[in-house]
Amino acid sequence: MIERTTVIDGLYQDLVTIRAHAPLVHNITNLVVMSQTANALLALGASPVMAHAEEEIMEMVRIAGATVINMGTLDAQCVQRMYLALKAAKVCHVPCVFDPVGAGATPYRTQVAQALIAAGTPMVIRGNASEIMALANNECGTKGVDTLFESDNALEAARTIVRQTDHVVVISGEKDFILTKEQEIMIRNGVPMMTKVVGLGCTATALIGAFCAINPNKSMASVHAMTTLAVAGELASEKSAGPGSFQYQLLDALYNLTFEQLAGRANITFSAAVNFVV
Amino acid sequence: MIERTTVIDGLYQDLVTIRAHAPLVHNITNLVVMSQTANALLALGASPVMAHAEEEIMEMVRIAGATVINMGTLDAQCVQRMYLALKAAKVCHVPCVFDPVGAGATPYRTQVAQALIAAGTPMVIRGNASEIMALANNECGTKGVDTLFESDNALEAARTIVRQTDHVVVISGEKDFILTKEQEIMIRNGVPMMTKVVGLGCTATALIGAFCAINPNKSMASVHAMTTLAVAGELASEKSAGPGSFQYQLLDALYNLTFEQLAGRANITFSAAVNFVV
Amino acid sequence: MIERTTVIDGLYQDLVTIRAHAPLVHNITNLVVMSQTANALLALGASPVMAHAEEEIMEMVRIAGATVINMGTLDAQCVQRMYLALKAAKVCHVPCVFDPVGAGATPYRTQVAQALIAAGTPMVIRGNASEIMALANNECGTKGVDTLFESDNALEAARTIVRQTDHVVVISGEKDFILTKEQEIMIRNGVPMMTKVVGLGCTATALIGAFCAINPNKSMASVHAMTTLAVAGELASEKSAGPGSFQYQLLDALYNLTFEQLAGRANITFSAAVNFVV
Repeated sequence: MIERTTVIDGLYQDLVTIRAHAPLVHNITNLVVMSQTANALLALGASPVMAHAEEEIMEMVRIAGATVINMGTLDAQCVQRMYLALKAAKVCHVPCVFDPVGAGATPYRTQVAQALIAAGTPMVIRGNASEIMALANNECGTKGVDTLFESDNALEAARTIVRQTDHVVVISGEKDFILTKEQEIMIRNGVPMMTKVVGLGCTATALIGAFCAINPNKSMASVHAMTTLAVAGELASEKSAGPGSFQYQLLDALYNLTFEQLAGRANITFSAAVNFVV
Repeated sequence: MIERTTVIDGLYQDLVTIRAHAPLVHNITNLVVMSQTANALLALGASPVMAHAEEEIMEMVRIAGATVINMGTLDAQCVQRMYLALKAAKVCHVPCVFDPVGAGATPYRTQVAQALIAAGTPMVIRGNASEIMALANNECGTKGVDTLFESDNALEAARTIVRQTDHVVVISGEKDFILTKEQEIMIRNGVPMMTKVVGLGCTATALIGAFCAINPNKSMASVHAMTTLAVAGELASEKSAGPGSFQYQLLDALYNLTFEQLAGRANITFSAAVNFVV
Repeated sequence: MIERTTVIDGLYQDLVTIRAHAPLVHNITNLVVMSQTANALLALGASPVMAHAEEEIMEMVRIAGATVINMGTLDAQCVQRMYLALKAAKVCHVPCVFDPVGAGATPYRTQVAQALIAAGTPMVIRGNASEIMALANNECGTKGVDTLFESDNALEAARTIVRQTDHVVVISGEKDFILTKEQEIMIRNGVPMMTKVVGLGCTATALIGAFCAINPNKSMASVHAMTTLAVAGELASEKSAGPGSFQYQLLDALYNLTFEQLAGRANITFSAAVNFVV
């Protein structure tokens, strides 16, 4: 098993690296969260770029440390652009993170999401329980973009995706799970207020992109990103009177996050040989 | 006449219902306010979804409690999508709310707005005075998306629309008016600071959607939504040093709104038999 | 040389005029900053409108005090719309401000930006050092939308553009420069935190539009806009714990900005006959 202090050291080292090098994170994301995502990446220390023109996607992905694709406000044009980014990521060996927003809510979303993860580009997939279940199983439903299930309920679906695709799968929720073929990791941080602000799932996905840009171990990069956001969320909620103040406090907390705050709060559990039983 | 306490009780009951059931509110809205609208719906207790792909509009409206269409950043594609949402709302008997942003500013906007309200789907229309006047009369002008008139000035225009279409019409301004064939209701709440933040009209429209999702009486749902936002605006402005802090305070106020705050501030006047004379 | 008090008086007079008359500022801007740009224009006292439909651009520019075009999230459709706005601005003699976001990051961006500034509409161009250098010289690179150079490094590039096009060029950075054929002006205000929030360059561009709407001297309007934003940034940073609180404090500071604050902080240097040597 991995020592807790080793994990925290690795996480903080990644954060220091991001702050020092400001990796470029390319995003094709939804229209609702563009501003928030860019601000969260900046607060973390990364350098966000939002660019979706067919004429420049290949070039933009090539110079980026990671590319993040998010289908929140998908349409036919957006889907085509996401495919171009996937293709560029594969050709240029740039890490790719995918957010299947609302998969399961409509057949269109489910089909697009399933096709994107099957397109042959290695990726980290981050979704809520409903979304991950929809990716593995057409018959699951969600309510719009909000989940109807606990993250535990999606573990089997996530394992199916991991087995079939070799992608890293992140299920976010009250507990976050990061799954690979070799390992399953659980994070128990964060606060309910994080569901009262739009797009924090999308923010989590983008932060995974930032950590993947500087850490070649995608599952550990995902653990670091999810822990960073969840701990910042805890800190922010303690200073917030509601979702409005929570939003700005979260950016302040990301920007000011210290080793002590991470070490004092990170609640990460590794399951080496045996998977989590739920 | 309706007793004031009955109105406040009904309003608060709706708020409790929204918070308990988190109705799904589908939005095809403008690019400027998407994030703010979603956050306001979340702060209220509703579950927002922004989705505009032709491939899923019918499905998304069908599972929603209400659909909100807003033409703020309209173009030909957006107009087509709004028609699809209107059609879906009619077929699926889902309440529909329409925001004719900037009607009157250009002939294109006026024509699109007039065509949408004539398309045969029952709706609540919420606009400022200039917009409502433009819907009833091509010859009125506005300055971009801001009104040049007091809401009282648009009462005759609103009555014309109500008579011709049977839609519910909401004129927002220093005084808000909600008009049906049977009744006119005036709300005197809110603060000037609400005009110093972009998109609070759009937010009002979206909140009407949330209340319509759980209250079949569209005019009362509109009264409840407009009062909720205006009272939250009053509370927020008392804690704000400017439009920046007002924005987050408004979300906090919506999230924390109590019966006492509503009862202590709501200023609603019903005109049963006789219309307001202005 | 111009007296400092004359400059401050002129700046404050412009601010008073904007607050009194709320000039309409038309924007075709990127999807990331739309909301922020609109809120900054409102906080300043202007009236923003975001409209990009081919069917109404000519009409919207015609009734506007200025038009602002920003290529942050450009694609083929967006480029076509920006050309229409440029054409309308020329025909209607409406001041035009252009933000070449990310010029230099990809060949596509550089080519589009160069073509737009060569299209024959007089304009103010505001960019960071990398962007201005890319406009003058294809061989310069940037990292996404962030600059790799100090603003001083772009002075020669800016002079080349000014000579070739007669546009006013604004280079923003730790020092801001405003260049015309006759004069170069330097502003030393602002704080590093302004680079930790997405889109403050775009906000600067939009504020130039607001000042150009009421002041026919485009270079002085640019000086006034850049100084206003930079001084507001200083005030905001003193009350902020991070980029989240900075964002709302900036809007509050713009809204409440006083003559005393401007007079006490504005650091503007004019170079009449001789250019700044760097």
